[in-house]
Amino acid sequence: MAPNTGSAGHKYRRIAADLQAAIDRGEYGPGDRLPGENVLAERYNVAVMTARQALHLLRSQGIAESRRGAGFYVQSWRPIRRRGITRLARDQWGSGKSIWEADENRALDVDQLRIERTTAPPRIAEVLEIEPGEALTRSRRYLLDGRPVLLAVSWFDNGLVDGTPIAVPDTGPGGVYARLADLGRAPVRFNESIRAQLPTEEEAERLKMPPERAVLRIVRTAFDADGKAVEINAMVADSAAYILDYEFDA
Amino acid sequence: MAPNTGSAGHKYRRIAADLQAAIDRGEYGPGDRLPGENVLAERYNVAVMTARQALHLLRSQGIAESRRGAGFYVQSWRPIRRRGITRLARDQWGSGKSIWEADENRALDVDQLRIERTTAPPRIAEVLEIEPGEALTRSRRYLLDGRPVLLAVSWFDNGLVDGTPIAVPDTGPGGVYARLADLGRAPVRFNESIRAQLPTEEEAERLKMPPERAVLRIVRTAFDADGKAVEINAMVADSAAYILDYEFDA
Repeated sequence: MAPNTGSAGHKYRRIAADLQAAIDRGEYGPGDRLPGENVLAERYNVAVMTARQALHLLRSQGIAESRRGAGFYVQSWRPIRRRGITRLARDQWGSGKSIWEADENRALDVDQLRIERTTAPPRIAEVLEIEPGEALTRSRRYLLDGRPVLLAVSWFDNGLVDGTPIAVPDTGPGGVYARLADLGRAPVRFNESIRAQLPTEEEAERLKMPPERAVLRIVRTAFDADGKAVEINAMVADSAAYILDYEFDA
Repeated sequence: MAPNTGSAGHKYRRIAADLQAAIDRGEYGPGDRLPGENVLAERYNVAVMTARQALHLLRSQGIAESRRGAGFYVQSWRPIRRRGITRLARDQWGSGKSIWEADENRALDVDQLRIERTTAPPRIAEVLEIEPGEALTRSRRYLLDGRPVLLAVSWFDNGLVDGTPIAVPDTGPGGVYARLADLGRAPVRFNESIRAQLPTEEEAERLKMPPERAVLRIVRTAFDADGKAVEINAMVADSAAYILDYEFDA
């Protein structure tokens, strides 16, 4: 991330790339110990610090993990496969399930839930067709086995959801989409747009991830039968924790 | 990317984050000049080198571009919005169009086209249900306005495509999917799986991008009417060049 650090910078990337390739070939499996910094320094004829940088790079990218005083190991944590289309099928939320229950059946916990009347940025207000001051947000963080993996902020027209279960912490079975259906505004179509970018400082802190690892930014817009946007959900996912999966007909 | 460089490392990220936020708020538009390193150094009371690191970080992430001797400017290049589902509709390739023509009508050029008989990694051979030695690949690089944006390697069963237009450079109207249809193996269903990771050295070189900016890895599998995989396309996209878009029914 720092400006080019010259030949040492180049070398640590080279070492990290070699280790990554060995992991990809299956020479080191999940949980296996990687060569230590002294071994790598000798093998590549570089300073121990350079070898250490290579291991730190793999750790920052979520490929390796370190154990205090015991070196570096191939990450044994399996990423979540998020089934983008199945999970949003009406069969899912219409039957009272949580959306993420479609994701390989790995149960997520929610914390940092906050609901507030707030001012929407112009672009969000425009899509929801509301005055900027007329927005309500549901913010939350998702954790898997105690590890934060995703931040989400859903934007609604406060005039639509005020006084409904969407404006209180527990939305009930099937979540906000089932409640929008109760209001006669069931989502019938979704758009998800995806970018990879670095996290902001706040995002990196809340996701407990290093600032030099990318996040996946997913913006979902839910449309009702009249083509009106009923929710915009801006998500930020740790890129080491997620595989996004879309399956569809030709 | 280097291990924590202490408080200077923290500060340059803070400055970069502030500039990024100002760009997001629209205070600096595409092509606008950003404050110079001397101005930033004074404003934040840091060394000029620290201010420079902030600007280099924005450049490495594709948010700013530098002009020789003239400072840093907000990136004026607009990312490609890739319509994941529309572009693969049979209407598209069935009518003789290139798949990427659905992407906001921005014409891509192809270079580095290479077709070869090769050995497939075990996982690819398994999905294609072939012996590892029975694979044929089409590799190519895509450019927009001369800028490399995407690498792609498509894997096929050589026994299926040998002697067909899929095994020669020009596949004809509608590309490989139209030719698979000619062979009675039209794709009827697609799966795309997406991850964000750092590029390998070779990928960064071919995409002419800095090694500390993430790529989007997209693996598409095309299935025929019998549910057999007829193509696996492993793509690597510069994350600064692409927004991936999926639109689908509930």
